[in-house]
Amino acid sequence: MASPVEMDTKKESGNYLNHISLDCVVFGFHSNQLKVLVLHMKTTGEWALPGGFVRGDESIEVAANRVLKKRTGLDEIFLRQFNVFSDPQRSNRNPTVVDLLLSGQDYPEANWFDQRFISVGFYALVEFSQVQPQPDELSDICEWVNLDQISKLILDHNAILNKALETLRLQLTFQPIGYNLLPEKFTMSELRRLYETILGKELDRRNFQRKILAYDILIRLDEFRQGVAHKAPSLYKFNLQNYQKALDEGLNGRW
Amino acid sequence: MASPVEMDTKKESGNYLNHISLDCVVFGFHSNQLKVLVLHMKTTGEWALPGGFVRGDESIEVAANRVLKKRTGLDEIFLRQFNVFSDPQRSNRNPTVVDLLLSGQDYPEANWFDQRFISVGFYALVEFSQVQPQPDELSDICEWVNLDQISKLILDHNAILNKALETLRLQLTFQPIGYNLLPEKFTMSELRRLYETILGKELDRRNFQRKILAYDILIRLDEFRQGVAHKAPSLYKFNLQNYQKALDEGLNGRW
Repeated sequence: MASPVEMDTKKESGNYLNHISLDCVVFGFHSNQLKVLVLHMKTTGEWALPGGFVRGDESIEVAANRVLKKRTGLDEIFLRQFNVFSDPQRSNRNPTVVDLLLSGQDYPEANWFDQRFISVGFYALVEFSQVQPQPDELSDICEWVNLDQISKLILDHNAILNKALETLRLQLTFQPIGYNLLPEKFTMSELRRLYETILGKELDRRNFQRKILAYDILIRLDEFRQGVAHKAPSLYKFNLQNYQKALDEGLNGRW
Repeated sequence: MASPVEMDTKKESGNYLNHISLDCVVFGFHSNQLKVLVLHMKTTGEWALPGGFVRGDESIEVAANRVLKKRTGLDEIFLRQFNVFSDPQRSNRNPTVVDLLLSGQDYPEANWFDQRFISVGFYALVEFSQVQPQPDELSDICEWVNLDQISKLILDHNAILNKALETLRLQLTFQPIGYNLLPEKFTMSELRRLYETILGKELDRRNFQRKILAYDILIRLDEFRQGVAHKAPSLYKFNLQNYQKALDEGLNGRW
């Protein structure tokens, strides 16, 4: 009972609002795989997305950043609301075990989990290498799992993950992605592989390069990836001004 | 005290969830103007967006459809969540007057409005001519106001409206809009005027026509708009199959 996370919880003041929770789909990219951060519950052995509740003095964004700072160690995270999950049956579960664990902690009611929660879904795009996964007070493991190896999650967390992925896939058609997921310098193959792993399908190498270059969001550097078997490939970085413009106005520009 | 709306309220069962509300930005298009549905509060004379609360057995979408059916008379509405508004200070207001009005009604607490609300924002696109605006139990007027004539609204409702508009503007860059806002048959000028009024700027007539036709979402009919001064313009309708595909995959198609 003395992990850093639990001590953090004790130190904080203020109760949580009833009925409102948040769940985070944290995407990272490593070894050409899209990965998702998940927690393993101590008591039941189930897997879950990182999440939390909203304190009386917090906006939902502040709450999400607080939760993700604890789970990842990161202060500034690319984080977006993408959907509110509110099926009246979504949070039905046996509350006994978690309540036992949490009694005497920061929750306003002994039967905290025995209420209906409407959950705000966020997705986060993070640079894999900078994350230090940390379990919460209900879990004993926090780790990255490849997207295609995620199995059954608790409650409606699989649906939350799928909706986040669907949002990301649509977003690829009108906004750039990659700045928050890739290291500063990357090859065209690494960027294409990121798109492929989000889309769940292979892309034609030449078409991808032609299309992505036409958006004018990349700068080709006079540097090459070292230590690869074949001809050393060029490195790119994002043109941040154009990248931001494409985020604001869409990849195809204003009407 | 016997308007149809109030009687409806009495008939319904089940209390509302604490802390959660919803607000709706209802857009309509008429006489070449984008309009927004607003309510005039009986007691304070302030203006507000239509909104409501969530019953214990409702999802937030069901609640939003219930609220909008009452305000517009419409059963099926194009409705999308676009943001959750959760600033801890957003719902601070003097609750006395509204509570007086609502006491004895369907709200679980006498001081119902004296709590913090996190509000889920929806925007709706409706066909102007089909809407029959209906005030709620707190208001005496429900009416369309031109977007550029909306003045101060209660709480953070101006911010909610602006965020809805921003969402719609970004959406124009990657998804078609118009099917829910225009009558079945329309001229190219009417469609362009819809885009102009959302974007808040004039568009070049020829560029617009070229660009929108290239998306292959329109069918040109062998019919013409009658009763106009100049040469009778062609009528168009949407190709619904392609329109839906563009909604799902983005106007520029999949990667």
